[in-house]
Amino acid sequence: MAAPARKMILDLDTGIDDTLALAYTLASPEVELIGITATYGNVRLETGMRNDLALLDLFGHPEVPVFPGLDHASAKSDFAVSKVTEFIHGRNGIGEVVIPDSARKAETTPAVDFIIDAVHRYGEDLVYVPTGPLTNIAAAIAKDPTVADEIGHITLMGGALTQPGNVSPCAEANIDQDPEAANALFHTHAPITMIGLDVTHRTLLTHAETAKWRALGTPRGEFLADMTDYYINAYAVNAPQLGGCGLHDPLAAATAIDPTLVSTIDLNLQVDLEGAFRGRTIGDPKRINEPAGTTKVAVDVDRERFLGLLMERLTALASA
Amino acid sequence: MAAPARKMILDLDTGIDDTLALAYTLASPEVELIGITATYGNVRLETGMRNDLALLDLFGHPEVPVFPGLDHASAKSDFAVSKVTEFIHGRNGIGEVVIPDSARKAETTPAVDFIIDAVHRYGEDLVYVPTGPLTNIAAAIAKDPTVADEIGHITLMGGALTQPGNVSPCAEANIDQDPEAANALFHTHAPITMIGLDVTHRTLLTHAETAKWRALGTPRGEFLADMTDYYINAYAVNAPQLGGCGLHDPLAAATAIDPTLVSTIDLNLQVDLEGAFRGRTIGDPKRINEPAGTTKVAVDVDRERFLGLLMERLTALASA
Repeated sequence: MAAPARKMILDLDTGIDDTLALAYTLASPEVELIGITATYGNVRLETGMRNDLALLDLFGHPEVPVFPGLDHASAKSDFAVSKVTEFIHGRNGIGEVVIPDSARKAETTPAVDFIIDAVHRYGEDLVYVPTGPLTNIAAAIAKDPTVADEIGHITLMGGALTQPGNVSPCAEANIDQDPEAANALFHTHAPITMIGLDVTHRTLLTHAETAKWRALGTPRGEFLADMTDYYINAYAVNAPQLGGCGLHDPLAAATAIDPTLVSTIDLNLQVDLEGAFRGRTIGDPKRINEPAGTTKVAVDVDRERFLGLLMERLTALASA
Repeated sequence: MAAPARKMILDLDTGIDDTLALAYTLASPEVELIGITATYGNVRLETGMRNDLALLDLFGHPEVPVFPGLDHASAKSDFAVSKVTEFIHGRNGIGEVVIPDSARKAETTPAVDFIIDAVHRYGEDLVYVPTGPLTNIAAAIAKDPTVADEIGHITLMGGALTQPGNVSPCAEANIDQDPEAANALFHTHAPITMIGLDVTHRTLLTHAETAKWRALGTPRGEFLADMTDYYINAYAVNAPQLGGCGLHDPLAAATAIDPTLVSTIDLNLQVDLEGAFRGRTIGDPKRINEPAGTTKVAVDVDRERFLGLLMERLTALASA
């Protein structure tokens, strides 16, 4: 079977829901995952790359290359994982579940250069899905501004427009890690869909679903169930009102593959950089009367269809 | 000609754009304005009632009654007009333009009781349009909770969801005057459409339009032109990036009459009451997964059609 024409890059800080996004993408025949660009956030960069390589082995896709991204925010000199993040994802990023290291290593090409090359090679056919801070893509555009105009689409998990944030009353964690990078990206003409807490807190998974994976009796099924149960248990402590874990990153991946899963509004976005509002994603009042830009914000989601797709695809992957 | 079946109450803190909303409503054959309920905000309550009665005379509708509302926020004991508001609306509320006092007086029935009676009388046929703080309607619902269920619709000017506020980085002036009242209203099941800065800063008037009213050579045309020019000049100082004055209140009135002027999203809203975020209108995270409620937020507007309607109707009113 020929590889699909549509190419995807996942930019991951792997992370439990990053892992679900990776599994979803690998189980989706509509796109070819041409690479993972690694970032920091849920874990440190090195831990994320370790997880990416190990997960690609577990999921049967050792052909996908992993590229080292930048390991801290553009306005900072280092990065440390927060205690809250460790609680939610586990210190190893995958809910303290142990899977073997891969024999493979990450590529030596920096993620920024891989992104630039891929955009020039695939153009409209390329969708880039960042599920962590926007440091890598902002750096790629800073190095080669044509990336913003030539890239097919960016479907990012991050931000909160119509709901409060999750690390402050207005800031969502991924944007908050590197507000300068996100603000720079939102001021380009890149075609962007923002998948924020507005929709990801509407797509929830519970122990009822993970039990189905465990019942498969396969290593993949057991891994997905154990890892996701850790996440669900953390949500039960930190956000009990939701009644499940937010499917942040897999919703971004699924929307990149099928944009009709969400409804969107057009909005020229900015990110606040100062004081109590630092990290807020909000309409840019200076551009409110400029033509509707290239940035769409998801404000509602077909949760039943998405959950159906997620269970169908991850169960198929886990059955093998 | 029989009076239209659809009845409207305007709740005004009159105010330049309140005056434009009043003129728009009086010039609209689709609705009968059955009363004005007065509030505080752009001016003190007494000044607003003075303006309402004088304007109804000027516009040829001395039959419309004016009811005294509450004169300060639910959580405060008094009210004073801010310096910024005086700059925007003039100390007399209508851009320092002088029009004669009416010989009429306001009713003695309190606005809250008039609202309750009108809801029970007209039910589904009644649309209530508050263009200032939500103190009166919140008090009416507190006194008679069935108002929230029986009222036809509330189309309010206030709030900011996808744009920053205008009195703080997140708070819009009307909501900020009485956040407790707004929050209480948003937690009822009343059918609400929020017309916030998200859309009102997209509908602008300039000296080019007011010149057309002045050219009519009528007292009404001259008044509308002089008053609105004051407002446009204030915007040129306070919000020069917009390139005109925001048509806040007339857009709410126009949308109450024709909801298809805006596109909306369904959202269970709350108002933040504490700290730097006091006065923010935002989705209620505790109700994010409750069924889409009865609150709609306007996120885009057909500005050309609205401006066409505004000029057509106000020019007709001013021509007489």
